[in-house]
Amino acid sequence: MAGIAWVNGKLLPPEEAAISPLDRGFMYGEGLFETMRAYGGRAFRLQEHLDRLCAGAAELGFASPEREHMVRAVEEALAAAGLDDASVRLTLTPGITSSSPTLVVLVRPLSLPPPERYASGCVAVSVPAAQVGDTPLRRVKSLNFLDKLLAQRAAAEKGAHEAILVDPDGCVVEGAMRNIFAVIGGELVTPPLSRGFLPGITRAAVLEIAEKQGLRACERDLPLCELCAADECFLTSSLAEILPVASVDGRAMRAPVPGPITTALMEGYRRLVAQELGPVEG
Amino acid sequence: MAGIAWVNGKLLPPEEAAISPLDRGFMYGEGLFETMRAYGGRAFRLQEHLDRLCAGAAELGFASPEREHMVRAVEEALAAAGLDDASVRLTLTPGITSSSPTLVVLVRPLSLPPPERYASGCVAVSVPAAQVGDTPLRRVKSLNFLDKLLAQRAAAEKGAHEAILVDPDGCVVEGAMRNIFAVIGGELVTPPLSRGFLPGITRAAVLEIAEKQGLRACERDLPLCELCAADECFLTSSLAEILPVASVDGRAMRAPVPGPITTALMEGYRRLVAQELGPVEG
Repeated sequence: MAGIAWVNGKLLPPEEAAISPLDRGFMYGEGLFETMRAYGGRAFRLQEHLDRLCAGAAELGFASPEREHMVRAVEEALAAAGLDDASVRLTLTPGITSSSPTLVVLVRPLSLPPPERYASGCVAVSVPAAQVGDTPLRRVKSLNFLDKLLAQRAAAEKGAHEAILVDPDGCVVEGAMRNIFAVIGGELVTPPLSRGFLPGITRAAVLEIAEKQGLRACERDLPLCELCAADECFLTSSLAEILPVASVDGRAMRAPVPGPITTALMEGYRRLVAQELGPVEG
Repeated sequence: MAGIAWVNGKLLPPEEAAISPLDRGFMYGEGLFETMRAYGGRAFRLQEHLDRLCAGAAELGFASPEREHMVRAVEEALAAAGLDDASVRLTLTPGITSSSPTLVVLVRPLSLPPPERYASGCVAVSVPAAQVGDTPLRRVKSLNFLDKLLAQRAAAEKGAHEAILVDPDGCVVEGAMRNIFAVIGGELVTPPLSRGFLPGITRAAVLEIAEKQGLRACERDLPLCELCAADECFLTSSLAEILPVASVDGRAMRAPVPGPITTALMEGYRRLVAQELGPVEG
């Protein structure tokens, strides 16, 4: 298995790495993770991911290691893996007794949606959101990820690539694995954080790019029926970046896929990465 | 650390046991667990726990090992631990790639609520249930256990011992860690499975005992206001067995604690254990 695992300071091939079955992350899903993309051996927006991780740990009530320690862990793992383009997963748990956290960094070859998914868009279907109410679990990226996996599986059973979570009010919350945007009448629309979902790092980057490009953008409630009649739609995540959506619940987006605004944002995202990390191949 | 860990066929002291950080149980909380109590070195209602585990694996879409294999694992771990009265935790995950499941059996010294909790009852407070809708996650005992931990912590912050989860209809669902019963006008009442919660093995045993004792018992919706005005209330779990509740949201139960019906069921439970496993000390 290509890649490397950094576990509490030890670098190992991923298949040789070990954690305790007594770890609260394994016992109860008590823990958090972050998935980042590395370009040219450097993780994009590492600080933002660490901000979110530390905020999540505070919310769940366990200590995070020093920032510098986590930065070094990611850098050491990336250097040891020797991969330019890679996925980097950080997992943080309170450990066995909450007195000594477990930190795992997994650097592995990047696995992306196939190129045709970017060229022709993916098929999305709506799925009811399983979590409601004001629970921190909706705002943090916890190891309690089964609801997302099950939503994604329900979508796959319907022949779709992506599940769009819809809450009991009929409002779009997020994709099971990614945040969601629509383009409606020339305006970029994405659900507000008050709908209760993980604030995506790529979502924030796309809002920044939209502002730079002089695009009207709005965080507001997005009823499912409005999404189905949108001009364009796309999903965002650190690994997949910006992924166009061709249809939602069988209704095709009005603009050809990828639409003009989606395309402009995809290019803007690539420029942002190059600006922050230096020129990137591909 | 006393006890033993059985991990995919290997017996080890718990602190030396290891699983892969690539295990889907650790990555996403994709997995299930069962907690049983052993009396005189034998697990009570092991078959029922394995039934529930296998049903959960089918629901989550991954394979369970052969029943005989799991029974042997529990027996080997119990024999190696050399503990009479013990807690036995089985954890089952799809493993790293879903092709080879991970099975962990942890046998550890029993850790029970303090005796005064049985004698004077525990203090319970209501907490909103975080999961709604028809999701398998409410019916299976998955590693996605954070919502329960957070509910229990919210209760502890209010000085209570137990969180009672209440759904948006105002109906009692379950305790965060245990199922719940009330005694109202001489009748035993417990929420119906249709409210969406884990069907407890001890809950089922208590309903059996009630029938044997000729007690009227009913699985029906239990509004929180009705629970707060009940004569008696108790919680059930495999480890704690039957745990009397003294008050809910500051309102004391009408009968002295433990109430007469609670006491009769506690005695009935002890007899049931002795009947199935042979005489038990204490």
